[in-house]
Amino acid sequence: MPDLIPIDDPNDPRVAAYRDIKERDLVGRQGLFIAEGETVLAAFVRDAPQRVQSLLIDGKRIDKLGEVLAGLPPGVPVHVAGQAVLDAIAGFHLHRGVLAVGAKPKPLSAEALLAGVGPRAVVLVLMGIANHDNLGGIFRNAAAFGVDGVILDGDCCDPFYRKAIRVSIGATLSVPTAGLAPGEDLVALLARHGFQALALSPGARETLAELDPPARAAVLLGAEGPGLSKTVMDRARTIGIPMANGFDSLNVATTSGIVLHHLRFAKR
Amino acid sequence: MPDLIPIDDPNDPRVAAYRDIKERDLVGRQGLFIAEGETVLAAFVRDAPQRVQSLLIDGKRIDKLGEVLAGLPPGVPVHVAGQAVLDAIAGFHLHRGVLAVGAKPKPLSAEALLAGVGPRAVVLVLMGIANHDNLGGIFRNAAAFGVDGVILDGDCCDPFYRKAIRVSIGATLSVPTAGLAPGEDLVALLARHGFQALALSPGARETLAELDPPARAAVLLGAEGPGLSKTVMDRARTIGIPMANGFDSLNVATTSGIVLHHLRFAKR
Repeated sequence: MPDLIPIDDPNDPRVAAYRDIKERDLVGRQGLFIAEGETVLAAFVRDAPQRVQSLLIDGKRIDKLGEVLAGLPPGVPVHVAGQAVLDAIAGFHLHRGVLAVGAKPKPLSAEALLAGVGPRAVVLVLMGIANHDNLGGIFRNAAAFGVDGVILDGDCCDPFYRKAIRVSIGATLSVPTAGLAPGEDLVALLARHGFQALALSPGARETLAELDPPARAAVLLGAEGPGLSKTVMDRARTIGIPMANGFDSLNVATTSGIVLHHLRFAKR
Repeated sequence: MPDLIPIDDPNDPRVAAYRDIKERDLVGRQGLFIAEGETVLAAFVRDAPQRVQSLLIDGKRIDKLGEVLAGLPPGVPVHVAGQAVLDAIAGFHLHRGVLAVGAKPKPLSAEALLAGVGPRAVVLVLMGIANHDNLGGIFRNAAAFGVDGVILDGDCCDPFYRKAIRVSIGATLSVPTAGLAPGEDLVALLARHGFQALALSPGARETLAELDPPARAAVLLGAEGPGLSKTVMDRARTIGIPMANGFDSLNVATTSGIVLHHLRFAKR
């Protein structure tokens, strides 16, 4: 059990990283992020304990958090405050009552990510996913189905944004994630590493259900509405999920779940 | 093209149904509901035109809505206002700029719903889905995969709540929906109609991927966290989706999409 540090003054410099959370969500935190809630914190401590910098928790929750606190590396400060002090620090009513500051992992290139996976692998490539709910939902599915990594283009939102972390139930903190460099030729990069590029698109001619999963699959997902660019689609294998009676399309996070389930469990 | 009724006074009695939307979301609307946004309105007019009671739209959007307005039955009033008047009526900034008042369909019993479907059918049974995002997401998938109906127990939230409609992209307005009467024996009801009850549960021994879809399938989904009750699970066939490395579970809407895709397209 770590030492608990009582905090009575919202302006205590030891909790400066937790101050005015929403304002600082907008300007960013230079290599740090805030995670919130018991479930997310449990996932964070389980999956990436070395990146937990500190905790700030409501004193009432210490008992429920026993197992999580026991999993912390030695020396991680755990600040404890009452609800009123917590709210004053955060700048809003913090009904989840549990916060952590974490360090983002070192940036990873898509090249390095692809070079590091095994002979059978699934990666997701997200292009223009700018909605935190969708991004978080996709990462949740990525963790649930054990994907080997997620590659984000420059038009995706930040997976370390508080809401994306929350929706992913902490999966954005542990799933290996890489950025696509501007101008990088994605399809060539994937081909070089033996990945088949599967571009999900409502207008595709091949259906997911008929797809025999390749040994190395890269699932390309674009934003709802615009979808993937023609440049990418023209050079990838397009795969669709047929819809009933003229329904337009599935939510992109749901699509990721359906595709990952198929890739992992499809009968051959 | 219907006649357009200009509205200049937020207190005009002709738009009383649109007043103070958020407050009235909470108290309910006695058989009516509010739908918002172009995509939802298009789905509503396409799928259930006879239940559109009136529209209130931002004058700037008339051109974009041409096809939708042309699909309205004769006599449906279309009120047109500027953004400031719209905002004053609704009581908040209405950036979607398009509202409709609709009539809920007549309540349908689960018995009647099941009696009315064909020999091959899929229905969803939702138990305790109290989150509008999840409920809306499930209905979106239900429409996308053409399910024959959705049965809700008394612990589900209202599918005609504004947010549920929006997340479902209007699917809650058209997918046949029935309520489960309090104390009704769901599993017996399903069996009487030849439906196999498939209870989705992380702890199940059978996996979805191995499931040979029955001719009539009822997919039972409970809330994330508590899940389905033991009483129901003990009498149903439990089906699970295996998770990677100790990940707890999928989002329930995503689960519905994966299950429906399998039931519809699984190779035999």
